[in-house]
Amino acid sequence: MNAHAQFRIDVKRLLTLAGQLFLNAGADAPVAESVARVLVEGELLGHRTHGVNLVGRYLDQLQQGQALGRSSEFEVLREGGVAGLFDGHYVLGPYCVERALAFASAAARQHGVGVGTVRRSAHIGCLAAYLKPLTDQGLLALVLSSDPSAALVSAAGGCTPVLTPNPIAAGIPGREAPILLDVSMSSVTLGLVNQYRLAGRKLPHPVLVSGTGQVSDDPGVMQEDPRGAILPLGGVAFGHKGFALGLLVEALTGALAGHGRKDRPEQWGAGVTVLVLDPDHFAGIEAFIEEMAVIADAVLASRPLDPKRPVRLPGQAGLGLRRAALEEGVALAPEVHADLARRARDAGLEAL
Amino acid sequence: MNAHAQFRIDVKRLLTLAGQLFLNAGADAPVAESVARVLVEGELLGHRTHGVNLVGRYLDQLQQGQALGRSSEFEVLREGGVAGLFDGHYVLGPYCVERALAFASAAARQHGVGVGTVRRSAHIGCLAAYLKPLTDQGLLALVLSSDPSAALVSAAGGCTPVLTPNPIAAGIPGREAPILLDVSMSSVTLGLVNQYRLAGRKLPHPVLVSGTGQVSDDPGVMQEDPRGAILPLGGVAFGHKGFALGLLVEALTGALAGHGRKDRPEQWGAGVTVLVLDPDHFAGIEAFIEEMAVIADAVLASRPLDPKRPVRLPGQAGLGLRRAALEEGVALAPEVHADLARRARDAGLEAL
Repeated sequence: MNAHAQFRIDVKRLLTLAGQLFLNAGADAPVAESVARVLVEGELLGHRTHGVNLVGRYLDQLQQGQALGRSSEFEVLREGGVAGLFDGHYVLGPYCVERALAFASAAARQHGVGVGTVRRSAHIGCLAAYLKPLTDQGLLALVLSSDPSAALVSAAGGCTPVLTPNPIAAGIPGREAPILLDVSMSSVTLGLVNQYRLAGRKLPHPVLVSGTGQVSDDPGVMQEDPRGAILPLGGVAFGHKGFALGLLVEALTGALAGHGRKDRPEQWGAGVTVLVLDPDHFAGIEAFIEEMAVIADAVLASRPLDPKRPVRLPGQAGLGLRRAALEEGVALAPEVHADLARRARDAGLEAL
Repeated sequence: MNAHAQFRIDVKRLLTLAGQLFLNAGADAPVAESVARVLVEGELLGHRTHGVNLVGRYLDQLQQGQALGRSSEFEVLREGGVAGLFDGHYVLGPYCVERALAFASAAARQHGVGVGTVRRSAHIGCLAAYLKPLTDQGLLALVLSSDPSAALVSAAGGCTPVLTPNPIAAGIPGREAPILLDVSMSSVTLGLVNQYRLAGRKLPHPVLVSGTGQVSDDPGVMQEDPRGAILPLGGVAFGHKGFALGLLVEALTGALAGHGRKDRPEQWGAGVTVLVLDPDHFAGIEAFIEEMAVIADAVLASRPLDPKRPVRLPGQAGLGLRRAALEEGVALAPEVHADLARRARDAGLEAL
C-alpha cells in the first residue's frame, strides 16, 4: 500500500468540503462554489502550489477581511454586448474570474468574441483551472492577469523590478483533449524563487538580476537593497520579447480595467482580463479542431531531445493527472490534508 | 557630407514612387497604396529587412502570379458585428491586413472589440508597421501571424520543426508615444539565421537544435538531413513558454481562419488575425493612458544593466528613427536604392 494512499480523497467529497468551509466562513453559495471548483480543479491538474493548498489561505483572507465572500460585492461597472468592465472589490478571485468568463463566453457565443476585464480581484489561483469548461463548449479562451501592488520583474536591459510575472493562460479546443497553457512572461515565478530561497538553494538557471545589475541564480538578490528582480522570459539575450509581452499583459489588464499602478494599491489584488472566441463565428469549430489535430499530431511525433522524454502538448500531463484523480481520488499533500481536516473539525463539518 | 546622404529620400516621394511601381505592375489603387504605406512605414521604423527592400520582391511576386494586386480578389467570407473572416487569395499582404484592421477597428469603436482573421494572405511585411494608425486613434491593436506552408521552430523538448516563428505584434496607446511591440515566439527568426549563414558565421547564442537533437549555434543545421529547427522563445530551459505561445498563435490564426497545415499549402502564405480593443468601452482611454504612462515612467527610470544603454520601451527606438526620417528623409541602403531606381526607370517613372 502506497504511503500516501491514506490521503487519497474522492473529488466530489473534496469539492463539497471546500465549498462548505467557505460557506461556513461567510461566503455565499455562488462564491463558495466557484472557489471550491477552481481550487480543486487546479489541484486535479497538478498545480499543487495553486490548488487546494490555497483553501486555508483564502479562508484566512476572508476572516481577516482581505478578501470578500459575498457575490453582491462584485460590481458590474459596464456591460455592453461584447465588452464588460467589472470591479471585484477583492471578492475571492475565482468568483470574479468566473463571472467575467460567463459574460465573455455568452458574448462570444452570440457575437464571436467577448472580453471581460476585472479590477481588484482577490487572488485567482491557477489560471489553467478556468479553461476546460470553456474548451468543452468549443470556445477558445484566454485569461491574463497582473498585480499592480507588486513589482518583481525587470525590463529588458534593466535591473529594477517594474512588472509582475503577468501570466497568459489559454484553453484551445482539441479533438481528444484541449491544449491548456499557462505561462508567465517572466523567466520564472516568484513562487519558484521562494521555494529555492526557503530550501537555501540556488536556482537551476541565472534568471535573476541583482539590484546592482549582476545576473544571478541566487534567490537572496530579491531581498537585497537595492532589490533585485526576476529577468523577463528570454533572459538577458532575448528578454526584450518576454518584457514586451509583459507590457502587453499590463495594458490588457490594469490599463484596460482602469485600475493599476497609477492607483498605488497596497493590497494584493489582480487585474484580470478574459477573452473568449467562438470559432463557429469564424471558419467553424470543425475546421478549427481539424487544424489543431494536425498540429498536435506533428508535435507529438517530434523527435525528442531526450529519448526518454517524449514531446508533449501544454496541459497534457495535467489532464492525465486529472483523469486519474477523478477515478482514483486526489492525493493531497500531508500538510494540506491536515490543514483541511483541522478546519473541517473546527467548523463542525464531517471529517475527510 | 555623410557617405549615405545621397540616398536620403523624401518620405512622400518614396511613398509615391512605391505606389506607382505597384500600379504599374497591375495592382489597383487600394492595394498599391496599402502596400506602399506599409512597406515605407516598416522602413521608417528601422525594420530594414521588412521595409522598402520588399518592394522589389513583392513586384516580382505580382509578375509571377504568386501574389495578386486586385482588391476585388480579397474575399469577405463572413462579416458579423465583431467577427470577420476573410480569404486573401494571396492578394498582397498589406492590403489584406489593413482590410482586416479596418473591419476590427470599426467593430471595436462601436462595440469595444473586433476580431478579423485572414487566410491566405501574401507576405505581410513588418507587423509593427500596421499599429501606429490605430494607436493614434486611441485603439489597442494586436496582429498575429503564422504560415502553414513552413515549419521551422521545434516544440519544447523536441528537435523536429513544427511551427513558424509566429509573431505577436501590438500597439498600445501612450501619452507621448505608443508602445509598439513585435516579437516572435521563436528564439530568433529565420531571417536572422539566414543572415548568419550567408555571412558564414555562427549565431551569438545556441538557439538552434540539429535534427539529431544537438543544441547548436550553427546555421547549417537548418540545411541538414534530418533538418534542424529554431528553438522556441525561452530556449532549452524555458522553451515550454515560447512553444505554448507559438501554439496559441497557430490557434488564433490558421485554426480560427480555417486554413492551415491541414490543407498542406505549398505556397508561402500567412494566416493573420487582428484583434482591436477600444478602451473607451472599458474604463476609458484617459485611465488607460494614465496607467501606461506610470508604467512607462517606471520602465524608463530603471537602473540599466549597462550604464551606457538606458532602458527603453518597445518601439521607442523605431519611433525615433521614424521622426528623424520624416524630417530629414529616409536613408535607403545602397542596393535598395539601386533596385528602386532601376525599376522606376524600367517603368518610365521619374527617377528617385
